[in-house]
Parts: sequence; C-alpha cells; structure tokens
Amino acid sequence: MHEMKGVPQPSSVSKSTAEKVKARRKKAVKPEELLEGLLSGNKSALSRAITLIESTHPKHRKQASELLEKSLPHTRHALRIGITGVPGVGKSTFIESFGKLYTNKGLNVAVLAVDPSSKLSKGSILGDKTRMEELVKDERAFIRPSASGSSLGGVARKTREAIILCEAAGFDIIVIETVGVGQSETMVHSMTDFFLLLKLAGAGDELQGIKRGIMEMADAIVINKADGENVKAAKLAKTEFNRALHLFPEKESGWTPITLTCSAIANEGIEDIAELISEYVELTKENGYFQQRRNEQNKFWLLQTIESALKNDFYEDPVIKKALKEQLTALDENRTTPFEAANHLLSLHQK
Amino acid sequence: MHEMKGVPQPSSVSKSTAEKVKARRKKAVKPEELLEGLLSGNKSALSRAITLIESTHPKHRKQASELLEKSLPHTRHALRIGITGVPGVGKSTFIESFGKLYTNKGLNVAVLAVDPSSKLSKGSILGDKTRMEELVKDERAFIRPSASGSSLGGVARKTREAIILCEAAGFDIIVIETVGVGQSETMVHSMTDFFLLLKLAGAGDELQGIKRGIMEMADAIVINKADGENVKAAKLAKTEFNRALHLFPEKESGWTPITLTCSAIANEGIEDIAELISEYVELTKENGYFQQRRNEQNKFWLLQTIESALKNDFYEDPVIKKALKEQLTALDENRTTPFEAANHLLSLHQK
Repeated sequence: MHEMKGVPQPSSVSKSTAEKVKARRKKAVKPEELLEGLLSGNKSALSRAITLIESTHPKHRKQASELLEKSLPHTRHALRIGITGVPGVGKSTFIESFGKLYTNKGLNVAVLAVDPSSKLSKGSILGDKTRMEELVKDERAFIRPSASGSSLGGVARKTREAIILCEAAGFDIIVIETVGVGQSETMVHSMTDFFLLLKLAGAGDELQGIKRGIMEMADAIVINKADGENVKAAKLAKTEFNRALHLFPEKESGWTPITLTCSAIANEGIEDIAELISEYVELTKENGYFQQRRNEQNKFWLLQTIESALKNDFYEDPVIKKALKEQLTALDENRTTPFEAANHLLSLHQK
Repeated sequence: MHEMKGVPQPSSVSKSTAEKVKARRKKAVKPEELLEGLLSGNKSALSRAITLIESTHPKHRKQASELLEKSLPHTRHALRIGITGVPGVGKSTFIESFGKLYTNKGLNVAVLAVDPSSKLSKGSILGDKTRMEELVKDERAFIRPSASGSSLGGVARKTREAIILCEAAGFDIIVIETVGVGQSETMVHSMTDFFLLLKLAGAGDELQGIKRGIMEMADAIVINKADGENVKAAKLAKTEFNRALHLFPEKESGWTPITLTCSAIANEGIEDIAELISEYVELTKENGYFQQRRNEQNKFWLLQTIESALKNDFYEDPVIKKALKEQLTALDENRTTPFEAANHLLSLHQK
C-alpha cells in the first residue's frame, strides 16, 4: 500500500432522529467548530462540511473557501480511486467488497458518487446505498451520494472539494464512483490517481470497442461476476481485453494496464485488485508520475474554473443577453457572419 | 441536385511569370476592385481575397471584414461537402474524379484543404495538387491548399471565411478536404452540409471501430479502390459498415447514412455518390434540416469565436501571466486549491 500516516479513527455517530432534526435546524454552524470536527474525523462534521461546499449561497461559499483553505494542510496522503462501469455491472456490490477489504485492514474509506443524471434518477442513489449495506454500517467507511448541480462543471467542483474534505477528515482511500457516461468518466479520471473500469463478460461491447475512450483511461479493467457458469466467459473476456489493451499506446505513467476477473458477490479476486493498485502506486511514486499527475490535474482544474467563470461572466451580462439574441437573428438571416457577430458582441462586453 | 442559380463562369487567367511577380508586388489592392473581381468569378481575385483573410495584420483584418460583409449577400446557394479519410485512402484521386463529375455538368467546384499538421508537412499540399492534375487545369475548378495557422481555431476561422468567398465567387460545390485526425474532422463537419468518409476495405479498423466518432458524423461512407482483386473485399466491407451504421442512433436529419463502393482511379461509382448527395439535399431541404443545420453551425461558430477571444484576452493579460505562474507554484506546493487560485486570478483580471 501507499505510505500511511496515523489515521484518526472516525467516531461512530448514531444520533436519534430528534437530535438529527435539531442539528439540521441549528443554522449557525461555527466554521471553526466544523473544522475541528472535520479534522478529528467526525463523520457528521464531514457530512455538514460537504453540504456547506455544495451550497451556492455567497455566504456559504465564503465559509466553504475558508474551510477548504484550512483543510488543505491536512490532505495529500490519501489514494484516490475512480471506478466506473455501466449500470448492471455490479458497481455497488464491488465497492462494498472492495471497501470492506480496506476497512478490514484498518484503513478509512470514503465513497463519493458522481451521477451526471442525478436530477433525473434521484432514486438510484438510495438504491446504491442499500446495496452497500455492510459498508454503510462500517465505522471506518463514509458514503456520500452524488453531488447535484446544474452543470457537470459544478458537480466537478463540488466533488473535488469533497475529496479535500474527506482527506482532511483522515480518510485513506477515496473511491469516486461514476456511471458509464463518457463525460462524467473523463471528469472522474481527471481527479483520481487510479482509474478502474468494471466490465461484464459477453456484454457485447468488447468487439465494437465502443468504450475505447474510456478503456484508454483505465489503469485496470476488472471483469466482475466471474462466478458459476460465468467463469469461462470471464476468462475469455479477460484475454480479449488484455489483447485490446495492448493496442493502445504506452502510458506516460510507465504502467501497463491489465485485466483481472473477480466476483464481488462471492468476494473473490478483490485482494488481487488491491494488490495491483499497490503495485501501481509503488511504481508511479518511484518514477515521479504520481505527483506529476496530481499537479497536472490541479492545473487542469484551475484553467477549467477560470474558463467557465469567464464564459459565465460574458453570457450573464444583460447587455450581451439582449445583443446575442439580435445577432443570432442576423445570423439566421445571413446579415452577418459568426466572426463579425462575435466581434460586435465582444466590443459591447468590453465597454 | 440542389437549386442552381446562373453561375458566372470563372475567367481562365494565365498570366506570364513576370506579370505574376508584378501583381504580387502591387501591395495596395483596392478592396472594391477585389470585391468586383471576386463577384465576377475571377479566380485570381478569389486567391488574393483568401490571402487577405488569412493575414493577421490588423489593417488586412479590417479590409477582410468589409470584404466578407459585402460578399455575404452573394452566398448561400452552394453545397458544402466535407470529405475525410486517412492518408493512403486515395482522397486526391477521389476528389479529382468527384470534382470533374460536377464540372462536366457545368458546375463550378472549389476545393479547400484543411490540414491540421500543415506546419510539419508543407510538402503534402503540393503533392495533393499534382495528384489532382485534371482538376487543376479545369477552368470551372479552384483548388486552395490548407490555410496555415497556429491553432485549429485560427484555421477554422480562415476556412469558414474562405467558404464565403468561394460562394460569392459563384462556386456551386465547395469541397472541404481533411486528413483523418479527429479534431479537424469535427471542425470540417461543423461547417459542411454533407460529410463523407472515405475508407478502404480490410484496412483493419472496421472491427475495432476506432473511428466511431467519425463514423457517427458521416452521412455516407465510401469504400474506395473497389477495383480488380479488391472488389470482393470492398463488397464485404460495405456490408460490415452498413451493419455498423445501423447501430448508431437515428440522425436528426432523418437521413440514414449508407455505404457505397467506388474506384476513383477507374472513375467508377462516382455518379452514384453524387446521386446520393442529391437525395440527401432534397430530403433535408424538404424537412427543413438543411437550413436548421446551417443556423446551428453559425451559432456554434459564433460561440466558439467568443470563447476563444475571452480566453485569449485573459491569458494574454500581463498581470495574469505573472500571477498564473505564482499560483501554479502554490498549487504544486499544496498551498492553494485550483478553485481558490482561479478566484484569485479572476479578481486580478477584473481590476
């Protein structure tokens, strides 16, 4: 495993419903108290801190900023693992098995879900939580459903900030789970150290290579449900995937992605996956790629944040809102070109 | 074919070398003369107009703007066809055959090449021109090598503006040719009415579906070099591609992309392709998609232009250049988060 610091043990909080309601009513949370709770590994404080960073209220944003700033010195030792796979691949069961393996070793595991479609399928989050019933009860584990938001960029910011908070709260393993949709996977890949793609044997998308972009991001492919009658097909799929992985250009990390099989439900093959991840961490810490990737990820997010703010500032300008409509009409009527119209709008904004 | 207006016949200009040199030296081209020459279909004027829009000199940019504005009322009846395929697929031979088919019908054909790697492979443009020797000599044809530029966005702007000029000069068919690189294909797709993907049989990328994104953009796939011993393989590939095309979701255009075979060198199957394109134009003009797509393309380019200008304005700000370096160092040293750093930089820029 990667280097491990002495980890504060999260206190197992089990409040009564009445107490919970009371806590929710208590609007004025002192930021210093929240920070103290967070740094002592209190899961309830962590939950409230994440709720704070998810708020778009200006006052909350300011408090969130301070909290993040003070949390920063306490982060950086955790390992961030991205896990993706299409619905039905058994992600929840896998994360339950995978998470338990680490908590059994005395490590603290946080699971953050990124669901780009969360607005439409709010129920699925609850479903996932019930499917991780062992992990939910584990005092070393923390599970947080998807951050909601109007844009993928907003969800990304919230998730990245939640990672910082989880690390400050002493979590060693941060699992970021997402659904098999291209954009959200790229986002999760851009904020994790290791990216794991869950697959099923014979699901039909192997030969068409439909998930090529996602396969290219994967540091490992794991074929789940390799049990019973499925074992043979899973082994065959493993060979196929390994062959496909060899067609990709060599990774900058120096790591060669490989395919493993497991049965999350029977708890088989999970240890091998954890072992593989350890090897990856060892290799990339030694060759410097681990830190390099984190630095690049930070830079990427810095630029992303700037660019979305610039666009927002422009398109939310009331002068632009009105003029843009006019220019679009002029475009449709062939009275201007896209470039002329853009220059006109830019000159209006600068005034 | 699409509606055709009376097309001014481009005057065939064959100046002596001395005259050419003299013309090149004559620096002060009057914009009104250029416009007049352009609108009368003079190919030399068109060439000079394209050179003008390619210039980054502020004075030229202003002249180019005026020229484009005055050209606009004379455009819109041409058909824009994007053609892509990996090197070796026979693009030049295909465009020669394809272009001749239209010029033989009395239509004027302009070919614009978009080569994202033109900086590295300047020779390839000349190569292409010599491989289109029939078309080069054709007085109804105009061939313009790739616009060079430091960025894909710059090349995109120049290409779009060149399309407007070609249309103002009375060209009926504008072929935009590009090489098989993802980004440039998306760009060409975003400025054409019909997108054609050239393929070879048995080139090995069918089953892996590596070009899925590009296949998804295609309105037709044409398997070239279907001649001699290749005919059988080409027919097989046609079946394969048609099967693959059926896996894609239905197109908004209401059009079902299909695969054809041809031999550009033997001039076989080209008429069928032109016929297919006519059917496409008829269908999409009838159901309104043709105009809708053009409007969407214009809107897309308007927004793209604005966004790249906003970014440019930010990152070229000397205050930001200096502060960005500092913030990146702070990021690497874990003294800030991407979001904090972004907010800091944005506040500096706004002052």
